[in-house]
Amino acid sequence: MQLGLVGLGKMGGNMRDRLREAGHDVVGYDRNPALSDAENLADLVAKLAAPRAIWVMVPAGVTEATIDELAPLLSPGDLIIDGGNSRFSSDGPRAGRLSTRGIGYMDVGVSGGVWGKDNGYGLMVGGSDENVARMMPIFDTLKPAGEFGFVHAGPVGAGHYAKMVHNGIEYGLMHAYAEGFELLEASELVTNVPGVFRSWREGTVIRSWLLDLMDLALTDDAHLEKLKGYADDTGEGRWTVEEAIRLAVPMHVISAALFARFESRQDDSPAMKAIAALRNQFGGHAVQQAG
Amino acid sequence: MQLGLVGLGKMGGNMRDRLREAGHDVVGYDRNPALSDAENLADLVAKLAAPRAIWVMVPAGVTEATIDELAPLLSPGDLIIDGGNSRFSSDGPRAGRLSTRGIGYMDVGVSGGVWGKDNGYGLMVGGSDENVARMMPIFDTLKPAGEFGFVHAGPVGAGHYAKMVHNGIEYGLMHAYAEGFELLEASELVTNVPGVFRSWREGTVIRSWLLDLMDLALTDDAHLEKLKGYADDTGEGRWTVEEAIRLAVPMHVISAALFARFESRQDDSPAMKAIAALRNQFGGHAVQQAG
Amino acid sequence: MQLGLVGLGKMGGNMRDRLREAGHDVVGYDRNPALSDAENLADLVAKLAAPRAIWVMVPAGVTEATIDELAPLLSPGDLIIDGGNSRFSSDGPRAGRLSTRGIGYMDVGVSGGVWGKDNGYGLMVGGSDENVARMMPIFDTLKPAGEFGFVHAGPVGAGHYAKMVHNGIEYGLMHAYAEGFELLEASELVTNVPGVFRSWREGTVIRSWLLDLMDLALTDDAHLEKLKGYADDTGEGRWTVEEAIRLAVPMHVISAALFARFESRQDDSPAMKAIAALRNQFGGHAVQQAG
Amino acid sequence: MQLGLVGLGKMGGNMRDRLREAGHDVVGYDRNPALSDAENLADLVAKLAAPRAIWVMVPAGVTEATIDELAPLLSPGDLIIDGGNSRFSSDGPRAGRLSTRGIGYMDVGVSGGVWGKDNGYGLMVGGSDENVARMMPIFDTLKPAGEFGFVHAGPVGAGHYAKMVHNGIEYGLMHAYAEGFELLEASELVTNVPGVFRSWREGTVIRSWLLDLMDLALTDDAHLEKLKGYADDTGEGRWTVEEAIRLAVPMHVISAALFARFESRQDDSPAMKAIAALRNQFGGHAVQQAG
Repeated sequence: MQLGLVGLGKMGGNMRDRLREAGHDVVGYDRNPALSDAENLADLVAKLAAPRAIWVMVPAGVTEATIDELAPLLSPGDLIIDGGNSRFSSDGPRAGRLSTRGIGYMDVGVSGGVWGKDNGYGLMVGGSDENVARMMPIFDTLKPAGEFGFVHAGPVGAGHYAKMVHNGIEYGLMHAYAEGFELLEASELVTNVPGVFRSWREGTVIRSWLLDLMDLALTDDAHLEKLKGYADDTGEGRWTVEEAIRLAVPMHVISAALFARFESRQDDSPAMKAIAALRNQFGGHAVQQAG
Repeated sequence: MQLGLVGLGKMGGNMRDRLREAGHDVVGYDRNPALSDAENLADLVAKLAAPRAIWVMVPAGVTEATIDELAPLLSPGDLIIDGGNSRFSSDGPRAGRLSTRGIGYMDVGVSGGVWGKDNGYGLMVGGSDENVARMMPIFDTLKPAGEFGFVHAGPVGAGHYAKMVHNGIEYGLMHAYAEGFELLEASELVTNVPGVFRSWREGTVIRSWLLDLMDLALTDDAHLEKLKGYADDTGEGRWTVEEAIRLAVPMHVISAALFARFESRQDDSPAMKAIAALRNQFGGHAVQQAG
Repeated sequence: MQLGLVGLGKMGGNMRDRLREAGHDVVGYDRNPALSDAENLADLVAKLAAPRAIWVMVPAGVTEATIDELAPLLSPGDLIIDGGNSRFSSDGPRAGRLSTRGIGYMDVGVSGGVWGKDNGYGLMVGGSDENVARMMPIFDTLKPAGEFGFVHAGPVGAGHYAKMVHNGIEYGLMHAYAEGFELLEASELVTNVPGVFRSWREGTVIRSWLLDLMDLALTDDAHLEKLKGYADDTGEGRWTVEEAIRLAVPMHVISAALFARFESRQDDSPAMKAIAALRNQFGGHAVQQAG
Repeated sequence: MQLGLVGLGKMGGNMRDRLREAGHDVVGYDRNPALSDAENLADLVAKLAAPRAIWVMVPAGVTEATIDELAPLLSPGDLIIDGGNSRFSSDGPRAGRLSTRGIGYMDVGVSGGVWGKDNGYGLMVGGSDENVARMMPIFDTLKPAGEFGFVHAGPVGAGHYAKMVHNGIEYGLMHAYAEGFELLEASELVTNVPGVFRSWREGTVIRSWLLDLMDLALTDDAHLEKLKGYADDTGEGRWTVEEAIRLAVPMHVISAALFARFESRQDDSPAMKAIAALRNQFGGHAVQQAG
């Protein structure tokens, strides 16, 4: 089927390729003319036959502006699909605004990273049954072969919600492996840490795709000496913990993984300065002077 | 090759089957005569040609006693392999005691649960190069097909150490999924929680064997209504955190998962009674009277 | 000085008493006629000489509505002080709305609970220097004698912000004592747990007012057998962790204390059901059937 | 009464002064001749009239050796009091060894740091009723004036146990204040962080001696710029969490405070290197190369 695709970066570009290989008619737009099939959004819209379906795949920070720019160019019956990492709570209001113009809206959480082009993308979809049915040819191509990798999670917002939780879980999983790595590295007994991770890839309870990646990383750099212990966080982790707080759901593990990322970006810890100051006050414990 | 196997429960019994199917000559002993190939340990030893290799696969609580009973029956050159869940710190002293009799010792951490019979078992081995080489025919049969599932992790103790860390990581992974499940269940937006988990099995960053099992469980019981939120812990989780403390390794995630298991077994929380008492004292906050 | 006081519950009523004892002219209003000095808000306003100062001391959930009802009754130059537990982020917008009518606004975080009437209240104030100066006679009476117990923390919002952090810290402190209590109760060695807490009230590093309260509670009920381990949370704890997330501040301790309150209100843990389900799947571990 | 005192460092020296001011006959021994009243342990013993009471106040690492050296010099009926930070689990075996020589043993957890000389020391005592009664004149002098600051917590070991829990609680309390400090420092609204802490010293729920110290520290250095966020840990924190694990007591808060100290001493986090490596693998996320 025909699809407009806004945003042809690492994710969008690969998705265009995967869709075209399956015979879909994809017209892409990107601010970078070298990547783009259209000169601007108006040109993109002009190149699509109504009723149009336009998939927006841009960084979360510019999604709202992109949709605001796109909406006036569209006609009733057109459909916008947000495949980016928007916060779920923005989906309902956005769908409401678009519906006043007769434009439909769906949200799709997309997982799979740079590997998705070949493996397929995990898709979590929020929207009406009707819109899901309309887009199934696209979903069927983007998702992995086989019975998994796609879910209609609920109404508008549910796709991004499921993706948010997916990423929150991802934080926790990654940190569990990371703690295990640190302990093995500290151990005097285990002399072959990369081999231990490698062995775990089959037969064990903890085998996973992330573990496969850990093996690749350790094959490359056995003690990860080339890297700094620094990690950004991208919104979904924070939103997951905020949702947990809103819904009174205990979330010790995912929050700990999130906080560890915060810590990784600090040159020094103000909290630990306070600890040092208190120890100095009550016990005359030795402290380290800054600088 | 010929192998003595002590302990023919859920794990040992399946391992005997897998080894025999591959043509190994396994003589098994179990306290349960219905399962056993030998009348007692002495009979088991008598049925094996020297130099013997005897794999002990009994609950961690009786491993020490089993080996103490077995050792005097053996001859110099014989080899004991402990495939149970012993604490790594017991391996070195045990190997030392056996070596005074000329008996060799190896430790093997075995993962895979009831699925190992067909999929193969993840094996983490601690011991000398010589003993590893001697046992490779057995390891090659027990491990999964393919390049993964086996590691010689280091000297005596390293196998159990790696298995301990494996189980610690397992605690963390499971709890990350569990927190995600609880949040999705609490969400007003996501109407198809089992479908979300099912979809994650392919194409996503968080796909794993544990996730596959989560899908199976939710297929069976969409809201896990048949189960109580109660979980035992089996030693390795505690030892992992204790090791982290000994080696000054921060372990927020795995410890949180461990503590959650402790909480799951409490009828009421003494700590939260203290919180309730304090709130009552300073604010006249309503408290709930016990029973 | 003259002060209007809206809300004469546990906190407001005590504050009226403390202010009157010091000679202030307090006109109070409460929905409960038995407590109230005025028939309604209009009557309250009528009983005060302009420029008026009205302190609103109502539950956080009705503060906004109370101020919305009050504002049209006031005159330029009047001043509203919110002493309740509003979220700091509502202060700025509220001050902005009131300023269009020429009405001033301050926020005051008030600590001290039911003990404040006699001990004085800890006051954290947000607002302009001018408004702080105007209200100092009231603050001086409400605060404890001595050099502590009052701070002008910053502009509008800073008072509630400081109170929010105060309460977040309170969550952490309480839970530290609570964990210590639970461990002592579990110990086989310590036979006099109430005595241990009592002893800590002087000479130790951990002496505090909360510890004094813990001693009172244990004097009353040595094992806290009369209480359920159940605790509500009142907003500030959640907001503290949300602010930490917004500002990328690691907050392991206060978040753990918050999550423990969530757990205390659950009959069963959905997360731990998931753990039980997974253990059942991979290991055939015994699970407990619900009810 | 007469008391032998081994170890005249920061704690022991101050205790000698406090005891002498109250009229006790204290004979002190220290390896440093400038501090010592006796040439060696034998000389110390010779200077004391039987039945002797000797208080050992040396670093935990040398307590065992000191007592082993002292015991053969003593006579039946003598009593050793360990006031250092021994692990509670060493007390029982130690008392057993001494009892074969007819020598009594008590353990005393001592809190108060450098402030104890003037304020008195919090004392948590483990031992028999008879030995406690024998030493009460000393305890009465060392403890603070008033009704608090002393407890006979239980049999041998209970004193160190209570002190261990005291220190575990201390870790949690300190970290709660530290997190609050970090959040206030990060806030855009609160412009007077030292003033906020100072105000909390009276009238609030969170007032405490540690808060008083925090005020002193911030008065000295408003943003703690002179200090590094670095903190040692001294055994009791680790033992507290280990005991929690042994007794299946959830301990999210105290363990988090302990782990934060571990982190404070790391130049870079191996765990976060693993996170960075995984993010790089699956998403091509930017990573920071190590130095």
